[in-house]
Amino acid sequence: MARPMTMTEKIFAAHAGLNEVSPGELIRARLDLVLGNDITAPPAITEFEQISAKVFDKDKIALVPDHFTPNKDIKSAEMAKTMREFARKHDITHYFEVGRMGIEHVLLPEQGLVAPGEVIIGADSHTCTYGAVGAFATGVGSTDMACAMATGETWFKVPASIKVELTGRLPRWVSGKDIILYLIGMIGVDGARYQSLEFAGEGVATLTMTDRLTIANMAIEAGAKNGIFPVDAVTERYLSGRVTRAYTPVAADPEAGYVRTVTINLSQLTPVVALPHLPENVRPVHDLEPTPINQVIIGSCTNGRIEDLEQAAAILKGRQVHANVRAIIIPGSQAVYLEAVNLGYVETFVRAGAVVSTPTCGPCLGGHMGILAKGERAVATTNRNFRGRMGHVESEVYLAGPAVAAASAVLGRIAGPEEVK
Amino acid sequence: MARPMTMTEKIFAAHAGLNEVSPGELIRARLDLVLGNDITAPPAITEFEQISAKVFDKDKIALVPDHFTPNKDIKSAEMAKTMREFARKHDITHYFEVGRMGIEHVLLPEQGLVAPGEVIIGADSHTCTYGAVGAFATGVGSTDMACAMATGETWFKVPASIKVELTGRLPRWVSGKDIILYLIGMIGVDGARYQSLEFAGEGVATLTMTDRLTIANMAIEAGAKNGIFPVDAVTERYLSGRVTRAYTPVAADPEAGYVRTVTINLSQLTPVVALPHLPENVRPVHDLEPTPINQVIIGSCTNGRIEDLEQAAAILKGRQVHANVRAIIIPGSQAVYLEAVNLGYVETFVRAGAVVSTPTCGPCLGGHMGILAKGERAVATTNRNFRGRMGHVESEVYLAGPAVAAASAVLGRIAGPEEVK
Repeated sequence: MARPMTMTEKIFAAHAGLNEVSPGELIRARLDLVLGNDITAPPAITEFEQISAKVFDKDKIALVPDHFTPNKDIKSAEMAKTMREFARKHDITHYFEVGRMGIEHVLLPEQGLVAPGEVIIGADSHTCTYGAVGAFATGVGSTDMACAMATGETWFKVPASIKVELTGRLPRWVSGKDIILYLIGMIGVDGARYQSLEFAGEGVATLTMTDRLTIANMAIEAGAKNGIFPVDAVTERYLSGRVTRAYTPVAADPEAGYVRTVTINLSQLTPVVALPHLPENVRPVHDLEPTPINQVIIGSCTNGRIEDLEQAAAILKGRQVHANVRAIIIPGSQAVYLEAVNLGYVETFVRAGAVVSTPTCGPCLGGHMGILAKGERAVATTNRNFRGRMGHVESEVYLAGPAVAAASAVLGRIAGPEEVK
Repeated sequence: MARPMTMTEKIFAAHAGLNEVSPGELIRARLDLVLGNDITAPPAITEFEQISAKVFDKDKIALVPDHFTPNKDIKSAEMAKTMREFARKHDITHYFEVGRMGIEHVLLPEQGLVAPGEVIIGADSHTCTYGAVGAFATGVGSTDMACAMATGETWFKVPASIKVELTGRLPRWVSGKDIILYLIGMIGVDGARYQSLEFAGEGVATLTMTDRLTIANMAIEAGAKNGIFPVDAVTERYLSGRVTRAYTPVAADPEAGYVRTVTINLSQLTPVVALPHLPENVRPVHDLEPTPINQVIIGSCTNGRIEDLEQAAAILKGRQVHANVRAIIIPGSQAVYLEAVNLGYVETFVRAGAVVSTPTCGPCLGGHMGILAKGERAVATTNRNFRGRMGHVESEVYLAGPAVAAASAVLGRIAGPEEVK
């Protein structure tokens, strides 16, 4: 019998061909998917070409031009071209061209490219998103991506795990974004450094897959190596029709060892915001002084799914974006965009005076599609509010869920959804 | 009795308080509207502040942040901010915020800000678009815009006029873009230098307002000072419900003097393209060698109206954008976007594998939203294909109407609409 293991330990053991693994152990693991984007893949490709003539598996690499597309300038056009030509040369199955794509972390789950029990690395820090479906997923550098594309494996130090026990059920207008911001506020941006955040407890079953994807997405903002959710009926329903290949879900052993347990009662949460310039600066939105804003971003790998847009549309319907605010809605993928058109959300947004963008990471990382000038302030459903991240070094980003972002767009100041009359 | 005058001469005489004017004469004219955008207004504002404390008329200035919005970078964010703050300080009625705007030359006619017989200047070369409604409209520099915002008038040298006599009726899939490209191909990019292109003849009545806006828009590409259309039932139908103020249409006198008459039989036109790197390099699309492409742009102040998107949708419906092509559709305004959503065109585009952008000038001038890498080739419904205009100096732009652009997107090479099966 192997020692009792956490979800992450079990997945690593299976992918390293070992009976058991322990925190701190160095292992080599098989990879089920290797991801890169238009920023990180080009340097990885340069490295790759020095070590290999062919990729380990053309079906297990995903390349997504999502950061600066449609190309914002010549430099970004050249980078996208490098990735596109590599994809053609190696006949990469999962290359997603502009118009047939989305933000990588919205796109890959949606397209069934991530499944329970799998090991996924991506040259993007928010690769941890896929923990939502019970996979081990983490961000790596471009050099790691290069080696992984050549060999199909990489090394890991097995992380210790923190159990995050969820109880209760979220009140109206409170979403996965509030949960993860609350958790980061509680443990800090280094609170889970090189550890696994394993979500558990009866509260998990009450969360939609969108909530889970948002939560796992921001595990990295607590310093975590990964975030991971149990595989339950909600997961299986989401995967049904998306993932057709066989996969092997794992469950944590009852006696698995955790370095710490954190409990969150979902019923007691309220909408929160993370103040500049760290995601741990979390406050209930109602505790804030009146804070005027210039821009609202609703989208990103964190909150660019249809349920996120649904929340925003519910608040914006029949209302107007405040005269002082630019509201930019960014569906996370072409599929999300199409659904938003068909559900009438896009019409709601345009009538409210918001623009609806092509799917892109865009302003989240200061890329394009809504960069801030000096002294400007944004409420954004993105994942990082580091100094200058969305533009000028003297601009400010307040992180929130879609309900707070939409309410703030209407009122021209940071506001909770129930303040919108 | 005044001497017989052209449309442009009559408008100038009325705005200069003169009985008559003649080509070559220097006049000062009252202005009905002064336009600037996020590129040209900031330097105009700097100049303005050196000469005046207040604007001549807060209702007669239009400021449109359309070139680099939603802001592509910090620099463009600062420029948009400069214009926004100026608009607030001077209580400019027609400032259009992101989300409540469009490409200036699509937006202003749509919003009823231009009317027959008016004189409009704009710090943007395609201001000549408004000649479509029988106004005199021309592009100026930022310093001219500054003085005009202070004084409400400017000087002009009265241009001589070329009469463009249109006969017949356009065949299916041939549009205003083909007419103006054909004309530029015939007379050259300096063929109407500092002259007025006055459209006339029985063919005018067969043209939609969208055709006329496209044609007048590109008058500058033949070097013209302006392009101008007679005011007829089509014009009045377009203006009805848009323009509520009084306006005074003018008609050319039968004996007016023209330096030249050019006749175009619309019935004989076929879809054309302008090859790199000048709009005068016009060829029938069927005469081209097979020419593979990387990108298609459908939009811009030239072809971003609902009828343009209708043509594109008719071809893209039920078809797929070629795997090698990024197709980027850019509605010219939020109103056009909303109409495209409601008419199902947006769904058609997304299902075909195209992206639908926020309204922006974007790639037309190499701004953002689809910049070309080295060696890439685009078919675009934009207005200029100068070397490097859409990106890398070694990229190429082929100008065409929306039908050719959409057909090319499907086939992955420059193609006429009837080639799409």
